[in-house]
Amino acid sequence: MREKARASGVTFRPHVKTHKTREIARMQHGGGTGPITVSTLAEAEALADDGFRDITYAFPLAPDKLARVAALARRLERLNVVLDSETTLRALEAFHASTGIMFDAWLKVDCGYHRAGVDPGSPDSVRLAVSIGQSNAVRFNGFLTHAGHSYNVATRDEIGRIAAEETACLTRFRALVASEIGDGLLRSVGSTPTASVVERFADCDEVRPGNYVFYDAFQSTIGSCLPGDVAVSVLTTVVGWYPERGHAIVDAGALALSKDVGPTHVDPEFGFGAVCDLDLRPLPARLISLSQEHGKLVTHAQLPVGTKLRIVPNHSCLTAALFDAYQVVDGGQVVDAWRPVRGW
Amino acid sequence: MREKARASGVTFRPHVKTHKTREIARMQHGGGTGPITVSTLAEAEALADDGFRDITYAFPLAPDKLARVAALARRLERLNVVLDSETTLRALEAFHASTGIMFDAWLKVDCGYHRAGVDPGSPDSVRLAVSIGQSNAVRFNGFLTHAGHSYNVATRDEIGRIAAEETACLTRFRALVASEIGDGLLRSVGSTPTASVVERFADCDEVRPGNYVFYDAFQSTIGSCLPGDVAVSVLTTVVGWYPERGHAIVDAGALALSKDVGPTHVDPEFGFGAVCDLDLRPLPARLISLSQEHGKLVTHAQLPVGTKLRIVPNHSCLTAALFDAYQVVDGGQVVDAWRPVRGW
Repeated sequence: MREKARASGVTFRPHVKTHKTREIARMQHGGGTGPITVSTLAEAEALADDGFRDITYAFPLAPDKLARVAALARRLERLNVVLDSETTLRALEAFHASTGIMFDAWLKVDCGYHRAGVDPGSPDSVRLAVSIGQSNAVRFNGFLTHAGHSYNVATRDEIGRIAAEETACLTRFRALVASEIGDGLLRSVGSTPTASVVERFADCDEVRPGNYVFYDAFQSTIGSCLPGDVAVSVLTTVVGWYPERGHAIVDAGALALSKDVGPTHVDPEFGFGAVCDLDLRPLPARLISLSQEHGKLVTHAQLPVGTKLRIVPNHSCLTAALFDAYQVVDGGQVVDAWRPVRGW
Repeated sequence: MREKARASGVTFRPHVKTHKTREIARMQHGGGTGPITVSTLAEAEALADDGFRDITYAFPLAPDKLARVAALARRLERLNVVLDSETTLRALEAFHASTGIMFDAWLKVDCGYHRAGVDPGSPDSVRLAVSIGQSNAVRFNGFLTHAGHSYNVATRDEIGRIAAEETACLTRFRALVASEIGDGLLRSVGSTPTASVVERFADCDEVRPGNYVFYDAFQSTIGSCLPGDVAVSVLTTVVGWYPERGHAIVDAGALALSKDVGPTHVDPEFGFGAVCDLDLRPLPARLISLSQEHGKLVTHAQLPVGTKLRIVPNHSCLTAALFDAYQVVDGGQVVDAWRPVRGW
């Protein structure tokens, strides 16, 4: 991903929310530090401690977090915040008026996911962009979007169409406001599916994928990666086997896997993770339900009590965050343990 | 719950898995220690450190955990394990032969939930019960069941019928084996819905409810409790408000709430938690989707950026476990912070 960004001439600002560790953040930059994206201030503070100096806090800024964000910014070269409302712009202006502190800001634009972000077709959005561009309280970087709807499709071709729209949306919006605030503003795009399927990054200035560090069963199902690319799994033990009912119980439940239902738009009965043997070969078993500590498999495989399995998670971001440490396996041996940042 | 158990003349062995704290475990016993049930060895070890001396590890025993379980048992007066297979009985016998260590054991019986437990109608189950009863390697307590299917109904009457069947199932099974191993074996039942709706505990010897310490939106929907009985909520802030689309974004996502879908058998569009104001009054808002850190609400309420809300979780066991500490609120003030045990 880093190499593709370099070859494409765009800034590589990977998201760290999937792993939340300093070790993998440095791997994302080839061993050193570099621009990163975070989803929580806890991630930002931990990575600032490790020497990262250019951080985008890619979550809609809550005005009551401004003091904490400012304390963080004082330790960095650049702290970029994201906003999509007049309310937050006014809060930034009031904060600047009382403290003199000025942040770098991105305007979040909705490119079709319909979660956060302004509607790029609305005159209100143009007015907000112009207000930010003309404000003396922020340095306006440009436009940021997240094509989360790339998860809702089933093929690489469909992901590719969303990738094209993700960037085109920002380029069109920039053109709408160019007459008032210039055409030099930047375009930042994200989403692991779109970043994975494009051959090169075009029509944008910065990319922020995150999940690609691990991938997961969802990503391999929709075509972002191959199953063998997934770098994380949950080791579990069969603690109940009921061959007469065709089911087994494993000691990985909702607190080990999360209750993410996976790519049900591709397979309504996908189950709560992909059940594999220790060598990550898929088994004929479906993880049909999770309670707090139990996972229930429907299977015709021989899975006597004590059998070890690996579950490839549906959504690695959620599963990884449930563990206090990742066991790092190299050549079949556990060689290290990396501890993700917790909380907010 | 404790008072109902006392008045019913049954052993009260509450589950601690919902809260995982020594503070609430002691509240369950009126301030002191007493018999408890755990779902993980991490919970058992932490509560043993706090002076709890009679613990049931109510999870199917994995044979490779025997050494760790034995180390724990040496610190207790009683450590009860749960099994439902010949494989595990043989592992207990081999462990006893090599170490001399003998555990107290319950046979898990499936009273209709169809997760773990032996089929009470099967001759194999009778044979296993007799084998455990005749084994010199374990002290056989009796029969333990969990009526998890009490969550799948929608009224107190239906829960009451499952409560009656939960106990009757164990009494019938005990009678089946009485001619060979006697009729003095005990019957242990669980499940917060069934324990909540019965007026007194009858036809059993021990009860193990857990979720009742907090309850949640699921329990109040099916009738285990009233909405005002729920003791836990997630404080969240509106970080995006889009009145023209009728939606809002809060800073509580899947890592704050869990992706438990709640009582969809009662309301298919229940949402990922019950959205309330700070005084826990329900708001006209539905939490339709969660990503890692974002919650998306559909609402016609006025929810400007910065508004504080409380989300009553669908499944308090899963939500509580996502937090490093519970903020304990009394009279509107945070008076303490309690830290749940993590991991396994």
